[in-house]
This record gives sequence, C-alpha cells and structure tokens, in this order.
Amino acid sequence: MTCLTRKYPFSASHRLHSDRLSPEENALVFGKCNNPFGHGHNYCLEVTAAGEVDAGTGMVMSPAALDAYVERRVLSRLDHCNLNADLPDFAGVVPTTENLGLRVGEWLQENWPELSVSSRLYRVRLQETGSNTIEIEFHEN
Amino acid sequence: MTCLTRKYPFSASHRLHSDRLSPEENALVFGKCNNPFGHGHNYCLEVTAAGEVDAGTGMVMSPAALDAYVERRVLSRLDHCNLNADLPDFAGVVPTTENLGLRVGEWLQENWPELSVSSRLYRVRLQETGSNTIEIEFHEN
Amino acid sequence: MTCLTRKYPFSASHRLHSDRLSPEENALVFGKCNNPFGHGHNYCLEVTAAGEVDAGTGMVMSPAALDAYVERRVLSRLDHCNLNADLPDFAGVVPTTENLGLRVGEWLQENWPELSVSSRLYRVRLQETGSNTIEIEFHEN
Amino acid sequence: MTCLTRKYPFSASHRLHSDRLSPEENALVFGKCNNPFGHGHNYCLEVTAAGEVDAGTGMVMSPAALDAYVERRVLSRLDHCNLNADLPDFAGVVPTTENLGLRVGEWLQENWPELSVSSRLYRVRLQETGSNTIEIEFHEN
Amino acid sequence: MTCLTRKYPFSASHRLHSDRLSPEENALVFGKCNNPFGHGHNYCLEVTAAGEVDAGTGMVMSPAALDAYVERRVLSRLDHCNLNADLPDFAGVVPTTENLGLRVGEWLQENWPELSVSSRLYRVRLQETGSNTIEIEFHEN
Amino acid sequence: MTCLTRKYPFSASHRLHSDRLSPEENALVFGKCNNPFGHGHNYCLEVTAAGEVDAGTGMVMSPAALDAYVERRVLSRLDHCNLNADLPDFAGVVPTTENLGLRVGEWLQENWPELSVSSRLYRVRLQETGSNTIEIEFHEN
Repeated sequence: MTCLTRKYPFSASHRLHSDRLSPEENALVFGKCNNPFGHGHNYCLEVTAAGEVDAGTGMVMSPAALDAYVERRVLSRLDHCNLNADLPDFAGVVPTTENLGLRVGEWLQENWPELSVSSRLYRVRLQETGSNTIEIEFHEN
Repeated sequence: MTCLTRKYPFSASHRLHSDRLSPEENALVFGKCNNPFGHGHNYCLEVTAAGEVDAGTGMVMSPAALDAYVERRVLSRLDHCNLNADLPDFAGVVPTTENLGLRVGEWLQENWPELSVSSRLYRVRLQETGSNTIEIEFHEN
Repeated sequence: MTCLTRKYPFSASHRLHSDRLSPEENALVFGKCNNPFGHGHNYCLEVTAAGEVDAGTGMVMSPAALDAYVERRVLSRLDHCNLNADLPDFAGVVPTTENLGLRVGEWLQENWPELSVSSRLYRVRLQETGSNTIEIEFHEN
Repeated sequence: MTCLTRKYPFSASHRLHSDRLSPEENALVFGKCNNPFGHGHNYCLEVTAAGEVDAGTGMVMSPAALDAYVERRVLSRLDHCNLNADLPDFAGVVPTTENLGLRVGEWLQENWPELSVSSRLYRVRLQETGSNTIEIEFHEN
Repeated sequence: MTCLTRKYPFSASHRLHSDRLSPEENALVFGKCNNPFGHGHNYCLEVTAAGEVDAGTGMVMSPAALDAYVERRVLSRLDHCNLNADLPDFAGVVPTTENLGLRVGEWLQENWPELSVSSRLYRVRLQETGSNTIEIEFHEN
Repeated sequence: MTCLTRKYPFSASHRLHSDRLSPEENALVFGKCNNPFGHGHNYCLEVTAAGEVDAGTGMVMSPAALDAYVERRVLSRLDHCNLNADLPDFAGVVPTTENLGLRVGEWLQENWPELSVSSRLYRVRLQETGSNTIEIEFHEN
C-alpha cells in the first residue's frame, strides 16, 4: 500500500462560541478565539489516499482527479468564507479545527467511490496555524 | 548600520469592499475577497529596526523591549480581531494588506523614540498568505 | 479518534559524550557533536494528544491547558538550558535527540490524567535540526 | 520503539509517459508532466529507521552511517540525473513519485542488515513538490 | 512607495553546459550540473511591484492582473519545460539561475505598462533550491 | 548588478553575558539568554555576493568556490562550537546575533579578492531563531 498526500491551502474566518456555555464559560474555554466579530486563518488541508500503484500509470490515483474532487467537495465550500455564517454545517456546532476536520472527512468519504475504486481515504490533516494541527485516520471497514 | 528583524504572527479576518465602488466593481476588483461575511488569514508581521550595535549589550536594541512595544502598539489591536468591524482605522478604508501595512507602520513610528533613541524603524513587511507580501521601507528625514 | 498536535520550539545546548567510551570512540561515534564545550540547537517539540471530540467544546482537549502542561513539565526544564550541565536526567545519559525525546515522553505521561482523562498522549516528535527528527508513539495498555 | 527520520534533498528531471498509452491518453493522464523534453524537481527524501535506543550511544543508529548508506544506495543514483535517461530501473516504468519511492524503498531494504541489525527501515517519504508527497510504510515479516 | 511581492512556483529541467568551454572545463565549472541528460528543480519566482497605494482599491495593483501577466509572460514559457531544449532564449546561453532571472526580468519589463502605469517592476527573486537564490533590483530611469 | 545568495546552516551554543554589567543588569538585559551554562541555536547564515553575470559561465561567481570560502572562513570556526569558550573573538564581546553577524562580515571581507575580483560582498543575514534575524549591507567604497 502506498499513500499519496496532496496539500490544499484555503483561507476562512470563524468565531469559537458554544450556545451551551455561558458568556463567562465561552471566554474561559475559547479565550481570544471567542471575540465577537471573529478572526481568521490560512488553513492547510492535507488529504491522503491509500492504494496500490497502478501498473499502467504508475500512480495511486490521478492527482488532477483528486484536486478536482477536493475542490468540489471541500474548497468550494470553505475557501474565503466565514465558517459560522456561511456553512449550515456549523449551526450549533463550534467550528473548531477538530469539528472542521471531521466534517471535511465526511465530505470526502461520501462520494469517494465516484472518484476512485482502487484507493481509499486514509488520512485528513488540517493545520490551522503553524502550531496547531488536527489529524484523523480512516480505517477500512 | 545593522538591522534587527523580529517576526510576529497574528490571526485576523477581513472583507475587501470599497464604498466607492458598485457591487459589480467590488466583485470584479476583489473577487472572492469580497464575500459578504469575510474570511481570514494567519498574518506574519516583520518589524525591522536599524541602528548601531551598542558596545555594552552587543545589540541594536532590546528584543524584549521591541516585542513589548509591538504587542502594545500593534498586536493588541489586530490579533484575533475582525479588521472591518473592530478597528475604527478601517471605517471607509479597505483593509487590504497594503493599507494594513501602512497603518502598522504609522502605529510603530508614532512613539518609536519612547522605545529607542539610537535606532529607527527601517522596514515593515506584512505577509498575508504564503504568496502575498507587502513591504514598506522608511527613510530618514 | 482525533489527534491534536501542538508545536513548541525551545533552544538548548548539549555535548554528545559517553562515559562508557574512550575519547577515540567518542570522537568516532559522535563526530563534531563531541566537541568539548558543546554546541546547540533550536529544537521543535510536537506533542500529539488523541481522544474523542467533546460535543460541548468541539475540542479533543483545551489547547491552553495543554500549553500550560507542556510549559510546566517540559519547557521550563529545557528551554535556554545546557542539557548536560543543567539536567540531572542526563548525568551518565548521553543527551541525544532519542534520549531527550524519551525523557520528554516520560515527563508528559507521568501526570497526564491531571491534564485530561478523556485523551491520552499519542505521539512525541522532537526535531533537532531541519534534517534530524525523532518520533515516539505511545500505545494504550 | 523509537523512530529516527533523516531528510535528504536531491534534484532530478523526468518525463511522465507510458508506452502502454496512446499519445492522447498520455496527455490526458499526465498533463504538463508529459511534455516531450521533460521537467524537474527538488525532491526531498525522508528515511525513517525504527529500533531500540542503544544504551551506550543513546541512538537508534548512527546518523553518519545512515547518511553514508543513503548516499551510496540512493543519492549517488538519483541526484542531478534524468530519471528516464539515466536509470535502467525506469525503462518501461513511468518515473512517478510513487514508482520512484517504491524503488528507493527496495534499494534501502536490500542491504539494510549491512547497515544495522538492531533497526529496520520503517518508512520512506518522498516529496516531489510542496503539495505532492508519497509515503510508504514497511512492516515486519 | 509600497512594494507588493507575489510568489510563483514552477518546475523545470536544465543542463549547465557552455559551448565556449572544453568538456573538462564544463565539468570543473558546473560539476554535477553538467550531467549530460540534465536534472531539474522546483523554482520559486518572486515578483515585486512598487507603487503608490490606490485610494479607491487600497492596492498597489490588482494581484489577479499581476498573476495573469506573470502566467502569460513567464510561467507559460517555463513551467514543466526543459530550459535548454524548449526555449530559444537559451540557445548558446547557459540556463543558470542568473541568466534565467535576467531573462524573466526582461520578459516582465517589456510589457509592464500594459499591466499597470502606476507601478513599476522593482525586484525579481528566483530561488532554484533552498540554498541558492538570485535577486535583481530594477532602478527607475 | 545581480545578487547571488547562498544559505549555510550551522549549530552553536552561547551565553549572553556582559562583564560591564552587574549580575542583576545581565539578568534584566539578557533574560533567559543569561543562564549560566548557556544554550544554543541552529543558525542560518545567508551570504549575498553582487556582481555582473559572466558571459562565459552565466554566473556571478562559482557557487562551489563561495561554499569553500565560507566553509574555510566561517563555518570551520563556528559550526558545532561554543561561541564564548571556543572563539577568542568573543573574549569580552557578547556573542549576540549582531556581534556574530558583524564578525562574520569581517571574516568574509578580509580575503574576498582572493575568492573573486568581479564580485563583492553585498549582504550578510544571520538568522538565530525563526523570529530573530540580523542583516548587514556592505557598501562600496
């Protein structure tokens, strides 16, 4: 099994705020990330596909096809948006790196077989800042 | 003359939109950066001071003093904020990297002599994304 | 399971020298790293915690709490120190990246439950230079 | 078990073209990478060895010995070469990052016991551009 | 005056060889870069424009217009090509980073006024590898 | 005029301490950098040469010759050393990044004509950590 990882930068804004917490608790839990009008980041998404190397093409999968899939499924929703205001996914869900990464993983898995039947989604990494990264591995059923 | 450069990352959100332009012109000029609810970046500010190296300390100036000055003058205003909504400086001023860099330069110059009389502000660099950077040099009167 | 990784830079000096080896063997095994007065590095520590994402906060754990824990358990001991001279841990133990990473892992595991009961230490990475990194994964009992 | 990773940059050129495909298919599958006279990259190879930390040296293995081994087995073949024209390994094999990484893994495994009996090859990562990386893990028999 | 810098990665191959030198001299002067079938790099081009910040848009110039101009004038010629074989510019001219940077500067200057009349080309930087960069500043007439 | 910049990493340790200052003043001025047994850094030196591009070789100067010169004049003195204990240059001189950069500049200028008569030393940059860099430009007489 060989893994192919492609990186996709995008820029978005968000505010970390939970409706389940009091204003004091929100300030305590989220600190500056709870500022009312929000702030933003240059995110870097890494998508890793795992599979056998095709004897004809020498590739796990077409990088161009993966790029188009990630553009359609993820970047067109997230790039240059406000996660809280623009995405119904984050109604009542705090747009932390963790929740964003989990949602990206779901979006990528939903239609993966349309993209490739000989590979599978293996890992999603989402870097929010140079010192904060989330990583989710996907296991075969 | 020796130059000391210190880097300061911060995160902020903004929307590029000019009141002087029609909606169509705004969309044309600013593209995705004109999205109504904004987006954001991990900015990296580089502040460069120029001066003689002090014989006693071996330094152009105290890095700790510079850090405190930049924190008080710049980062406390910009970090984890929404440039359009939180800063009166950008009422009627588009918060592009250029305008943000120019404003940061003004903030740094205003009280520089309180920070150091043997050095001067030499250059401000402001990186918005890995492929977009603004640079302003300051000349002696 | 979701993994959260946070990065912590610190600067330290060391000399690679083993009391069990002759001077010639030390020179052969450690090369320039055996220079008598030592040298130093900008290390970068990556701490990875694994756990479920909390439904209320949307986080594996509080990044602020992890930062404070790593500061208290690791950085306060290592940052701006001489590993050989300042740390009793390296009496008779060569302060290689491997041994330093293993010790950091022990320090982090010892009191982890005080930090978080819903996550565990998953991985420690310690980068010594741009071309030399150590990685240790921790498995559940 | 502790993992040691060392990074090795090298520069090479290649053309992605498969004899099994028609000119149209080659253009479709490989895009600009199918340009007749080729193009090139600054590759970055990461070699990861896994083993116990030696009590005497405090190391998984000698980095100098690993560097010499990688130089002899890999870099002397690949650095500053044309993968298609200079390497018999890529006669009839498309020199994609995947195929290059697999070949590097074979070269490294063939004589590993001559290098070290207390460690094993654990992972090969091969970065072709800042947004394209291949990763292969090696499992114990 | 404010400077805007945009970065453009591209990949190309080349061989350093001078018709004016003997084979022995070529080997001596260019070392491994003289290998007969060539090698390649991930280049990074930085284009810096200098000008006043426009009061309406808040920008030195449109980044989208600059990107399109650099694509048309430079990247469409260089990306995924062999500098020696694909570019008439390097017939009898060694495609060193210096010569490549000078040629890029000429291409950018030739039609600059079509791109922008309120800014000028200020600097071209061309990074060939992580340790080798060329920089050319352009002065006003 | 074209500028060629080459990067040279090295690792060293130091202690910032001035004999002209009291212990309290040293602690105040240098903070953690005044710790008695020292600490260290991965420095990155950038040497920039300026000159005309030679018509025969297409280069400002031979990178191999510059590398050998920097190795002999600078890296052989500084790499894997303790600046305070190993270098007579820092007897009574605080080994700050500023003083280290100035000394490196002197070393490079002293014998430059032996290296190249058609270029000159244009700039020295010395990065101590990711957020602290010194820069010195050299002007023609």
